[in-house]
Amino acid sequence: MSAAKNVLFIMYDQLRFDYLSCAGHPYLKTPNFDRLAAKGVRFTNAYVQSPICGPSRMSCYTGRYVHSHGAAGNGYPLKIGERTLGDYLRDAGAECWLIGKTHMVADVEGMRRLGVPADSIIGARVSECGYDIWVREDGLVCIGPENPDEPIDSPYNDALIAKGYPAPNPWHVHANSGIDEAGNIASGWYLKNSRAAANIREEDSETPWLTDRAIEFLDSRGDAPWLCHLSFIKPHWPYIAPEPYASMFGPDKVVPPVRSDAERHNANPVFEAFMEMPEGRSFSRDEVRDTVVPAYMGLVAQCDAELGRLLDHLEATGRMQDTMIVLTSDHGDYLGDHWMGDKCLFHEPSVKVPLVIYDPSEAADKTRGTLCDALVEAIDLTPTFIEVLGGKVLKHVVEGRSLLPWLRGETPENWRTAVFSELDYGGLLPAERLDLLPSDAHLFMIFDGRFKMMHADGGFAPILFDLETDPRELTDLGTDPAHEETRQRLYEMLNRWARRYAQRTTVTDEALFAQRGTEADFGCLIGFWDESEVAPAVRPFFVGKPERDYR
Amino acid sequence: MSAAKNVLFIMYDQLRFDYLSCAGHPYLKTPNFDRLAAKGVRFTNAYVQSPICGPSRMSCYTGRYVHSHGAAGNGYPLKIGERTLGDYLRDAGAECWLIGKTHMVADVEGMRRLGVPADSIIGARVSECGYDIWVREDGLVCIGPENPDEPIDSPYNDALIAKGYPAPNPWHVHANSGIDEAGNIASGWYLKNSRAAANIREEDSETPWLTDRAIEFLDSRGDAPWLCHLSFIKPHWPYIAPEPYASMFGPDKVVPPVRSDAERHNANPVFEAFMEMPEGRSFSRDEVRDTVVPAYMGLVAQCDAELGRLLDHLEATGRMQDTMIVLTSDHGDYLGDHWMGDKCLFHEPSVKVPLVIYDPSEAADKTRGTLCDALVEAIDLTPTFIEVLGGKVLKHVVEGRSLLPWLRGETPENWRTAVFSELDYGGLLPAERLDLLPSDAHLFMIFDGRFKMMHADGGFAPILFDLETDPRELTDLGTDPAHEETRQRLYEMLNRWARRYAQRTTVTDEALFAQRGTEADFGCLIGFWDESEVAPAVRPFFVGKPERDYR
Repeated sequence: MSAAKNVLFIMYDQLRFDYLSCAGHPYLKTPNFDRLAAKGVRFTNAYVQSPICGPSRMSCYTGRYVHSHGAAGNGYPLKIGERTLGDYLRDAGAECWLIGKTHMVADVEGMRRLGVPADSIIGARVSECGYDIWVREDGLVCIGPENPDEPIDSPYNDALIAKGYPAPNPWHVHANSGIDEAGNIASGWYLKNSRAAANIREEDSETPWLTDRAIEFLDSRGDAPWLCHLSFIKPHWPYIAPEPYASMFGPDKVVPPVRSDAERHNANPVFEAFMEMPEGRSFSRDEVRDTVVPAYMGLVAQCDAELGRLLDHLEATGRMQDTMIVLTSDHGDYLGDHWMGDKCLFHEPSVKVPLVIYDPSEAADKTRGTLCDALVEAIDLTPTFIEVLGGKVLKHVVEGRSLLPWLRGETPENWRTAVFSELDYGGLLPAERLDLLPSDAHLFMIFDGRFKMMHADGGFAPILFDLETDPRELTDLGTDPAHEETRQRLYEMLNRWARRYAQRTTVTDEALFAQRGTEADFGCLIGFWDESEVAPAVRPFFVGKPERDYR
Repeated sequence: MSAAKNVLFIMYDQLRFDYLSCAGHPYLKTPNFDRLAAKGVRFTNAYVQSPICGPSRMSCYTGRYVHSHGAAGNGYPLKIGERTLGDYLRDAGAECWLIGKTHMVADVEGMRRLGVPADSIIGARVSECGYDIWVREDGLVCIGPENPDEPIDSPYNDALIAKGYPAPNPWHVHANSGIDEAGNIASGWYLKNSRAAANIREEDSETPWLTDRAIEFLDSRGDAPWLCHLSFIKPHWPYIAPEPYASMFGPDKVVPPVRSDAERHNANPVFEAFMEMPEGRSFSRDEVRDTVVPAYMGLVAQCDAELGRLLDHLEATGRMQDTMIVLTSDHGDYLGDHWMGDKCLFHEPSVKVPLVIYDPSEAADKTRGTLCDALVEAIDLTPTFIEVLGGKVLKHVVEGRSLLPWLRGETPENWRTAVFSELDYGGLLPAERLDLLPSDAHLFMIFDGRFKMMHADGGFAPILFDLETDPRELTDLGTDPAHEETRQRLYEMLNRWARRYAQRTTVTDEALFAQRGTEADFGCLIGFWDESEVAPAVRPFFVGKPERDYR
């Protein structure tokens, strides 16, 4: 029995697994992350299904690999046919709400084809990957030469304007820009401006604003069980923090990058193409790291402070007793490690995420404050939430597995021996540089707890790291003859995974077991010469009687 | 330009590729198949995507592999989200009709979830894999101990009853049974009764009845372009033919089975499990073949005669000038070859199908009466039909390729170098015998035009045939050390195929090409230090101006 009747599923955007004090960051203090970790379990091997926002999130919300749900890149609509957390939880009698970001794009063509009106309840939910919307705010209000006049649909902007910040786009001009020496706007889109403080009152910036929405939500709840996906926008770029966080850290608090000169010599061409993106070139410069990383740390510190405010509220209102609380991220941030910026590839800072789960149940008391190093995937969240809220995990659809046993100190049978992550970069610059068709611009990561291999379609060698001997992932063994056997073993696992029948979602395993050898019981005789070969119960239906006896 | 404004897409059920006189059968004369082959192209390497009814057909109707659409076994509903021929053709302004069998089961749960009423036009079409129903008749009216009182929904039965055949199930008692020496019903479900003549007037049997429906359909058409899927039930079991076809062939006209004693020694365990099914054991007996094969041949002869009647009608009404006509099957029938009955595995008699396409266009004149030995898959039909009827082939969804170039004597660029077929046998008896979980009960065939390999998940060795040196597929090279390289090459192709992004169906390749490197043009600057790094057109949106200039 779970004491949790609610789930508060908190996601940060682009939060590294190791930028928390409980995860060992030497300078950044995150007392509130640590506070929840002390009450719950911190998973130290949690991997996302894709190291970019959209596909990673769609995997979180469907419990399925990217290769299965197909929303493989930012801006790719999630197919209307994909079942989501919202479907499962509502079937179980729970509500399913969103506050913040999802990166979802509606499958308008699928809705047209099936006649699902966008303004119906079903239409609204499939348009929002299953959530009912408390507030949807993806937090990137971009305007450029190709979309100079696009109407800005942003509840956050609306709120800022209502508070007196001037239209049309205070998200950019205030929350994500500073003021330069001349008193002009210094856009946070330029990394050089990350040293400035955001041109906004701290309490009006994005993270407190979403936290306020969450507190409003909590205060409005009745008896019905709910899941709330509180999905913060930060510490994702633009990297610019309001005071006091802007001044909290100096370059002396920036940890050195994990990289080596050797990485750039004879780099795998795919790795090289990603290193050559503007973010890789920028973050390879110390000036950039020294300017941006303090801002990133400030944003994380702000996330932590706001988490504290939220936890205080949950404690004060009794919700800590009946609410499971989850802290995670959709992917990490290279911040200059491996000569990379942003994310996209599969080194630990990009593909591994923080994951803390607090379960109020008595059954979880024995694991409070512990670590769990099992191989965990983001697709495990959906089945965990379904199980907590009393729903049914459809194992022929949901590919993740519930984490509840781990929270209760049990080791589930046949736990996975590898995690998988993917990147579809058909729409990204490295595919252009490598001259790849979209069908070849696919990367697959498999990690078995020791060896991590990246396979690239399109005719490239794999990348292989041995995290036991090389935990910093500096030595690519992808073409090392001594590791041929390891590569073969990992390829076998990867290919077995790729062949899985992830689309057989309309028939359960149980139905298939029950069906075996039953054709004759339903009157379908295949390959029988005469009555002696069929079961006695079947014979009367086919016995040689006069025609009238068949009426 | 195509002269065809209509498509008559004729499918037989379980018709072997080589039981036609134009394909070299020594005894069976099929003048009408031959007549159409003389006017069109006969494809000699046409393979189905699964050697059983349901999944094979769903691949024909979606243009997608079984691994992609997921309706992987008989009775597995096709997901509501899968687009079908009907969607594509209606978008192109053509009608899309069904006469006969599809083996479709509606995705009732998907319809519930999306609020698609079964009695709406959209609901009716998705329930019937995209077709409008002229008549739906799957032709297997089965009653047994587990479903003794199931209401019999069969338009064919209704028609027989209206003609005076007694209720409730003349499909069984008349069309698919004979009369024994004592004057009693001899059920056609027992192979021993295949020697009898069906207890029905020939013109009332299934093939003429469906042909009549097709002629009615043709006579009712106006100017609108259409595709009609005329989908016959025969020569599929129950194997029993009405006179004169019942007496047309004797055991002396039965060709010997393709099999060898060696096949049964040390057979691959998967092959063995299938051989051990009742149909394999039965068809391994000469008495069974001598009884059943003549009935099968009689049913094919009847199909041919009815095709003749239909072609005569098309000629008399001018439809041969504006209608593409296609003859094919959903899979073959072992008929005792390789110690097997029925179908399921991937030897030629099971997985290869007849395929004749007649194109009335002048452009096709140069190929009339020719053979084409290109590697062709059943999924090529959907894009062919879309192209003929002026629609748009969505290449990010449809996995087959149009056959029109071959019909016009052109060799398309980069034609496929291998065909794929699959079997999900999680619900079948061999999975029980092999003690397999549904997730391991998957077979994959890859055939490159010379080597055919079957991979079985679940830890079995592959099966490999060299059709150049062993066209009868009697020698399994699956563990032959001399063929290790061939197996590796085929595995590489199979695994590349399994990794393909078949679910990325909401974004086109064109959109991905167009997207590369354009973030900044839409106001999203990733990794730029300052304005010197962005394009001049982008700079004005981020220049350091007074705040009022951003309003």
